[in-house]
Amino acid sequence: MSSSAACIFCKIVKGDIPSFKLFESDKVLAFLDINPLSKGHALVIPKFHGEKLTDIPDDSLAEILPVVKKLVKATGAENYNVLQNNGRIAHQEVDHVHFHMIPKPNTEEGMGISWPQQKTDMDKLKALLADIKSKM
Amino acid sequence: MSSSAACIFCKIVKGDIPSFKLFESDKVLAFLDINPLSKGHALVIPKFHGEKLTDIPDDSLAEILPVVKKLVKATGAENYNVLQNNGRIAHQEVDHVHFHMIPKPNTEEGMGISWPQQKTDMDKLKALLADIKSKM
Repeated sequence: MSSSAACIFCKIVKGDIPSFKLFESDKVLAFLDINPLSKGHALVIPKFHGEKLTDIPDDSLAEILPVVKKLVKATGAENYNVLQNNGRIAHQEVDHVHFHMIPKPNTEEGMGISWPQQKTDMDKLKALLADIKSKM
Repeated sequence: MSSSAACIFCKIVKGDIPSFKLFESDKVLAFLDINPLSKGHALVIPKFHGEKLTDIPDDSLAEILPVVKKLVKATGAENYNVLQNNGRIAHQEVDHVHFHMIPKPNTEEGMGISWPQQKTDMDKLKALLADIKSKM
């Protein structure tokens, strides 16, 4: 399995760095974020080392969301965000794919989102659709 | 399969409302967001109707992220956020589970994130870990 000696999350997977481990399977690990945005803020990661979503094999990706769901149920969070960032400009801080499960108990705690919506342009969307589909 | 007559995404699944459809399988549908935050902003949804992540069967959840990955590759996005919101306070606007894949081409376009980090309290985290684990 892909692993990186310098990666802090790979060290957590190996047990070289301790973590508040919530769940572990062959392919997935879940633990509490030690710099939480709210109570219950947890991370779910593939053990497979990859920087971005596209680097992770499908069989590892398939196991992530059922684990996130398990955590949500156990924390009892009613409102919450699931977030996975790719690239420094997109707020990624550790270069090993990780999914945040962040409870949103009130407006102050949890993540804040801004949504700079663009003007809808149906013609552009139609052209874009054709372009993306041609690459799938 | 669970469906809701009043749900706009269920109507898109059924074809009663048109969409810029990127991908479809038995369990999953992907289409362009018509109010994009950036070029390539797409949604991936389970066809199964459920308001929050915990309402969706694991076999549907398992297929979501491999489809998101496929879309990222086809759009050629380098930097991007994957986001799924649960609850109005957490920015959910349509009550049918949906995953946003939002390219982040520059600081202006794409989603904005604020990160009100709380003080790390190891004793509290330890107690929380025991509490959550007892419920898993």
